[in-house]
Amino acid sequence: MTSYRQAGVDLLGAERHVANISSVVTATWAANVIGGFGGFAAGVEIPNGYQRPVLMMSVDGVGTKLELARLAGRWDGVGFDVVAMCVDDLAAVGAQPIGFVDYLAVGALNEQRDLAIVASIAAACRVAGCPLLGGETAEHPGVMEPDAVDLAGAVLGIVEHGEELGPSRVAVGDRLVGLESPNLRSNGFSLIRSLFADTLNEHLTEFLEPSVIYSPAVQKAVATGAVHSAAHITGGGIVGNIPRSLPRHLGASIDTRAWKPPPVFEAVVARGVNRDEMLRTFNMGIGFCLTVDPAGLDAVLAATAEHDPTVIGVVTAGGSLDIR
Amino acid sequence: MTSYRQAGVDLLGAERHVANISSVVTATWAANVIGGFGGFAAGVEIPNGYQRPVLMMSVDGVGTKLELARLAGRWDGVGFDVVAMCVDDLAAVGAQPIGFVDYLAVGALNEQRDLAIVASIAAACRVAGCPLLGGETAEHPGVMEPDAVDLAGAVLGIVEHGEELGPSRVAVGDRLVGLESPNLRSNGFSLIRSLFADTLNEHLTEFLEPSVIYSPAVQKAVATGAVHSAAHITGGGIVGNIPRSLPRHLGASIDTRAWKPPPVFEAVVARGVNRDEMLRTFNMGIGFCLTVDPAGLDAVLAATAEHDPTVIGVVTAGGSLDIR
Repeated sequence: MTSYRQAGVDLLGAERHVANISSVVTATWAANVIGGFGGFAAGVEIPNGYQRPVLMMSVDGVGTKLELARLAGRWDGVGFDVVAMCVDDLAAVGAQPIGFVDYLAVGALNEQRDLAIVASIAAACRVAGCPLLGGETAEHPGVMEPDAVDLAGAVLGIVEHGEELGPSRVAVGDRLVGLESPNLRSNGFSLIRSLFADTLNEHLTEFLEPSVIYSPAVQKAVATGAVHSAAHITGGGIVGNIPRSLPRHLGASIDTRAWKPPPVFEAVVARGVNRDEMLRTFNMGIGFCLTVDPAGLDAVLAATAEHDPTVIGVVTAGGSLDIR
Repeated sequence: MTSYRQAGVDLLGAERHVANISSVVTATWAANVIGGFGGFAAGVEIPNGYQRPVLMMSVDGVGTKLELARLAGRWDGVGFDVVAMCVDDLAAVGAQPIGFVDYLAVGALNEQRDLAIVASIAAACRVAGCPLLGGETAEHPGVMEPDAVDLAGAVLGIVEHGEELGPSRVAVGDRLVGLESPNLRSNGFSLIRSLFADTLNEHLTEFLEPSVIYSPAVQKAVATGAVHSAAHITGGGIVGNIPRSLPRHLGASIDTRAWKPPPVFEAVVARGVNRDEMLRTFNMGIGFCLTVDPAGLDAVLAATAEHDPTVIGVVTAGGSLDIR
């Protein structure tokens, strides 16, 4: 084997992949994007209205939810998972996403699958209002199985200096507004695969439901001026993530009767996972949580109406989290 | 298995990892970094001196060079590979890196190895003059082998609008200045592994030499005003990458006798790879190439002196690449 092709790296396939994805990628580009597709790097100008912009970066992967996508041969949702994981981390600090890049690692290129994945990322970027500036598709022959896939992404966000959301803004009496997640989002899948090993195929469609992207609604809520901090509910659940949006000296009282977890979580409970483990592993139906000034509560509920917002708790004195 | 821990996800190990890397990460932060380590996202302010900044993103991985690192149990160079691949793509458009994030995927956490990898990334970020703003370490039990590792990164860069390097600036007679690469950098390793399958262990140290980071020297060269465009020589070699720095209607004449490829490439040739394949797969000793106005040649050579710059060719009329 003395050519790159024979060593398992499909250069012609890579060229075809780039040609295939070109139009779906550039379709995400707004007027402030600079640089042609296929160059060494693409760029974006700072949107209007920022006086002293702070640039944020966030990086995340889809995790082993991809293994379920592989089993199902369904790739149209994974882009929403990777984009949601990244842009909604930015949304938790009040930042607007202005550029996304993806990293796709495969054992061997698969023209139809790889186009579907990038098309899914591009569709999710459009929902997030964020241009897909570039990406890397890497072939790892001999290290990954030919049909193995890993997917991660990184996002650039922007927020006006001094307008970042965060724990320091939070006060006793602030309401916790939960935004609905109808499904698992993109974490906890190693446990899911373990629990449902024998019947995974029966549940693939349910488990593969793509993650909701909260960023646009959160930005509308932030624009009301009433949002103090926010938490993206991923690994760790509400138990692990809501405290990250609170100062150390304050806690919260959360009433889990305020909302009903979607059926998928009941299916997990039925496999013997106890309530504590559920609460610190899965979102349980709340994918994002805003800490809101009570005076602006109605405006925030209106801004986030598409995600069925619910007051799930209140900020309390003392540093503890009380979950009933 | 009804706990996340039992499903193979080591949450306590993850907490230990975050604690371990905290100080090496924050040591890369300059005064313009905002946001505490461990938050949802960290941020950076725009450096002084930009009037109309264009923000660039670049994403890349280390590829299957990591497989050699795994075989050798040596992780102190891989950070230089991932950072070099990303920041030197930015350098090719004249952009300064201002924020880096990494994505590390593993089968199972390994405290010593994972700290070594992040410490290597942080060390490389310091060389590149770029803060390590964040990262994701993802455990993929049951999908990746326990000791399997993948590493990618994304960088944010900044360049003044209208000062981007690019083919449109290039003129006939411009000199091609090659910067020395003493080793393979981070591409071509699927072929390397295939060629040396039987004797890989003997060559690990040589093959694992970390990639040179050209970005700081390239920025000094760009500051002379004499650099028109640039090419980062990765997959595709000089044959595939130098044309990306030239307009379609111009070509280049390159004299390969102007420099001597380092010994590692002779070892590859000795395995039966022909010259054409070598030239379009490996850097052959030139890791970065600047297209330079002849009037400013001396200044560029001085600015890049640490990388043993060599005039390897000249831009010619007509769109062809002539390599002797």
